Amino acid sequence: MKCRIAFQGEPGAFSQIAALRFGGDDCTPVPMQTFEEMFISVQNGKNKYAAVPIENTLHGSVHENYDHLLKYDLPIRAETFVRIVHNLIAPPGVRFSQLKRVFSHPVALNQCRRFFEENPQIERTPFYDTAGSVKMVMSEALTDAGAIASAEAARIYNARILKKSIEDDRENFTRFVLLEKPRGGQKFPKRDPAIHYKTTVVFTTRNVPGALFRALSAFALRDISLTKIESRPLRGKPWEYLFYLDFLGHVDDPACKNALGHLAELADMLRILGCYPGAALKAPVK
Amino acid sequence: MKCRIAFQGEPGAFSQIAALRFGGDDCTPVPMQTFEEMFISVQNGKNKYAAVPIENTLHGSVHENYDHLLKYDLPIRAETFVRIVHNLIAPPGVRFSQLKRVFSHPVALNQCRRFFEENPQIERTPFYDTAGSVKMVMSEALTDAGAIASAEAARIYNARILKKSIEDDRENFTRFVLLEKPRGGQKFPKRDPAIHYKTTVVFTTRNVPGALFRALSAFALRDISLTKIESRPLRGKPWEYLFYLDFLGHVDDPACKNALGHLAELADMLRILGCYPGAALKAPVK
Repeated sequence: MKCRIAFQGEPGAFSQIAALRFGGDDCTPVPMQTFEEMFISVQNGKNKYAAVPIENTLHGSVHENYDHLLKYDLPIRAETFVRIVHNLIAPPGVRFSQLKRVFSHPVALNQCRRFFEENPQIERTPFYDTAGSVKMVMSEALTDAGAIASAEAARIYNARILKKSIEDDRENFTRFVLLEKPRGGQKFPKRDPAIHYKTTVVFTTRNVPGALFRALSAFALRDISLTKIESRPLRGKPWEYLFYLDFLGHVDDPACKNALGHLAELADMLRILGCYPGAALKAPVK
Repeated sequence: MKCRIAFQGEPGAFSQIAALRFGGDDCTPVPMQTFEEMFISVQNGKNKYAAVPIENTLHGSVHENYDHLLKYDLPIRAETFVRIVHNLIAPPGVRFSQLKRVFSHPVALNQCRRFFEENPQIERTPFYDTAGSVKMVMSEALTDAGAIASAEAARIYNARILKKSIEDDRENFTRFVLLEKPRGGQKFPKRDPAIHYKTTVVFTTRNVPGALFRALSAFALRDISLTKIESRPLRGKPWEYLFYLDFLGHVDDPACKNALGHLAELADMLRILGCYPGAALKAPVK
């Protein structure tokens, strides 16, 4: 039986592309309405995995998912980078000159500003989902409207691509992480020296001057590379923060093990959210 | 003549409350549709000030505004913390038992989850603005719908508050900053020893291990308190970041002056976004 990977959005969403890349032909991507439903569905065993967007090179972090990583104890097993290509899509037979409105997710609309500046006759119309906007213009058989979404979405809903790659900036990538419920207590993979690992942690510090500096010293003094730091508000303590860190290395590398021990001394709270093979940091722009 | 303070949203928005608190009776709050329009209106002299939300204790940073702070060179002159109280509001005569839908901004809906869990008969309906949702249920004279917004919004649109303070977490504050175009080259206030100042900077580091740690050393080694660090993607360099820092002190305090000189040595880019009187860090929960 194929394993189920939850993704958020309609079929044809960029998240589905990430799910297929994680799972290959052995998996069935399962669409979910909200980010939190993905986490819940893995937690309760309905789906084996979830493909969760965590960060985009233009838009920044997907903060809601950082909050869910803390709330649900589902370790990160892998990461991948998906290049985001936005296409202008319309029902077959609808010509570009007929378009009065274009629907898509607000983030996608924002990433195609130049297109809307060059075509002021077209109204940018926010919709809940990129692929969902293709589904809608098709099912309503609109003759004056288009959508912005992936080529995959055009294929799935039998729509036509009017213009390829209308995004402002081609260096548009989303980082996805694959989550899985721990089986039999094994939270992290056994270290394989041939693989470059990445580790993600979350911690809080005491609210004193220099606390974050000292926390980072655990890594800097051991020449461990940080690839990301993200701060999120700490619930119940206004203007205090949680810090999420990604660093290169496996939890069982001697330097990383010592760094985590050192950080544990300094931190009020520390949790390891995952240790997983790191994807190539920069995917090439085709 | 009264001075004009731009805010984003409809009259009755929490941003209008911030604008009035900054400007007092001598100012006229001017509603704008988008965050960026506020920045443009101050840049081109149409409005003297803008009251910009930068961070919320539950939702986190308003990242779009961090990006605009970098793009538009408008120094921060002041900050304030506004307590967010969400009220359930409906047209006069509409009873709670009649409500089938409640409209509001998605962030406000998310901050009232418990209310929706306890009232599953009511559908949560995303709308573009909190105060705008009150305006709409009133102008459409809906008899089965309510809105979630400030008490001020209920007053302005002659609507009725059905339930006060339905937010999940009372420690819900938004930090606003006041922006003004520099006049005659004076970017920062003269230092007054009786005032506690805060300074906001943005910088990039070289992408090498320990770069952020060294940057923070400029402050930690001088016992300067950081109150916030925020990372944002660096355009054109996938998976590299800009860092925004807030610290306590005036740019002309000897320790801060040295710290900024030290940071300038270590940073690829450094800009001071503002030096301003700091508001009390924790506003009391009434």
